[in-house]
Amino acid sequence: MERAVTDAVHLMRDGGSMTHEHSGPDSLERLNARLLRFAQERDWEQFQSPKNLAMALAGEAGELLEHFQWLTEEQSADLSPEKQRAVGYELADILNYLVRLAQRLDIDLLAVTDEKIAINERRYPADKVRGDARRASEYED
Amino acid sequence: MERAVTDAVHLMRDGGSMTHEHSGPDSLERLNARLLRFAQERDWEQFQSPKNLAMALAGEAGELLEHFQWLTEEQSADLSPEKQRAVGYELADILNYLVRLAQRLDIDLLAVTDEKIAINERRYPADKVRGDARRASEYED
Amino acid sequence: MERAVTDAVHLMRDGGSMTHEHSGPDSLERLNARLLRFAQERDWEQFQSPKNLAMALAGEAGELLEHFQWLTEEQSADLSPEKQRAVGYELADILNYLVRLAQRLDIDLLAVTDEKIAINERRYPADKVRGDARRASEYED
Amino acid sequence: MERAVTDAVHLMRDGGSMTHEHSGPDSLERLNARLLRFAQERDWEQFQSPKNLAMALAGEAGELLEHFQWLTEEQSADLSPEKQRAVGYELADILNYLVRLAQRLDIDLLAVTDEKIAINERRYPADKVRGDARRASEYED
Repeated sequence: MERAVTDAVHLMRDGGSMTHEHSGPDSLERLNARLLRFAQERDWEQFQSPKNLAMALAGEAGELLEHFQWLTEEQSADLSPEKQRAVGYELADILNYLVRLAQRLDIDLLAVTDEKIAINERRYPADKVRGDARRASEYED
Repeated sequence: MERAVTDAVHLMRDGGSMTHEHSGPDSLERLNARLLRFAQERDWEQFQSPKNLAMALAGEAGELLEHFQWLTEEQSADLSPEKQRAVGYELADILNYLVRLAQRLDIDLLAVTDEKIAINERRYPADKVRGDARRASEYED
Repeated sequence: MERAVTDAVHLMRDGGSMTHEHSGPDSLERLNARLLRFAQERDWEQFQSPKNLAMALAGEAGELLEHFQWLTEEQSADLSPEKQRAVGYELADILNYLVRLAQRLDIDLLAVTDEKIAINERRYPADKVRGDARRASEYED
Repeated sequence: MERAVTDAVHLMRDGGSMTHEHSGPDSLERLNARLLRFAQERDWEQFQSPKNLAMALAGEAGELLEHFQWLTEEQSADLSPEKQRAVGYELADILNYLVRLAQRLDIDLLAVTDEKIAINERRYPADKVRGDARRASEYED
């Protein structure tokens, strides 16, 4: 594992305290580079059209669903260590295909995500939709 | 937009050159904090069980598919600016649900992703699977 | 609506009483013919490769999810008439792509379904898995 | 296998010739009854809320995708017997969850499907959208 990795590891455990400082490549930039190299070394870029990567991503999302489909919402928040590990790998697969897809389409994943959140912040003013499941259900689009 | 955002923007454009240096919170850490605050301000955490977030993520993956389903692979790599923008927003939605889900399950998204890539690197030695679509099709699991 | 349609309508309302008798083409056979004609009249068969149909089906499954993602299980069983109607159309879209896909692959949808249920009946003996959520969660494969 | 099953088997092979006549319960009605009994005998109805069934269906749709994701469109139309069989079982799983979901929501699957096709027939007049991929890509909604 490269130095940047150990640097980045465990960043998310604390649920968003903004105290961590690091230097070096950003995590998604580093991930992008590693995945691109992985594909190139295997000559697998030829299979990774945006269409195919979208399918692969959705296939992994389907696997993710299967872990939760017979659980109650409460159970889904209290997974066994074994299941949590398996779910973690599904999330990893999804992130990997997501980063590959953005790279193939020359989409700046972080920029477009910030843009989309800003849209959602305007669309759902906190004082109007607070605790309102009905509005939350309009959240997706 | 916060300072860290402008810092992070356009990181991915260069397709993985490792030259960019920045300091401040990592992009996924920052995103996690912003999304958590977004949910808390609207009292929407109550709806965001892992089960529900997995469904929302898979729903967005379904929308992603719809952009590509009638395109050839070639067309999928050459989207109109309008379509590319729409696809970008779908990727953003997926990343947002992915980060929320990891936070809710206390999964370290970067660590597990690095771990999964290391597994794939061992499972698919470059000199054995090079250009081999059949092995590539065993890549998912 | 053709005669065969009115014949078939409302068959499922009674939840499985086997009393209804009808003659004429079977419902799935009739549906298959209608969908094939629909595609042929529009010269859309060229877009309906199995790969593309699988994507379209999964895209509709994603839309289905979106109707339920913020609902509790209880709420999901008690939809408003408006929502039930919308969900019904999603089910229709899925069935249509399913029938098209089977036709394109020359798969006998009813035969393979009967075969799969027989497999499940052997795999999950009623007296061993009764009321056992853990085994139910192994039901998918 | 019941008499009605052998009656129904192979109906779809001929791609829609409307010559087959049969009497007895319709195929979907029979399937619905069999699946309901399967769930009741195992006391699994308690897990089969519409929300959960929608997830299970989408999970199977994800598995379906995985069979096709690295294939070209041409390859997807020319599966090996082994792969065709596996895909057939995925289609079966999807049909089973679809029929269960319609039953749980008291949706008449055949009626709503006929209604949806009629909508599509009006929305896409054959003489206006013939062979037009752009319009075909607007087909989904």
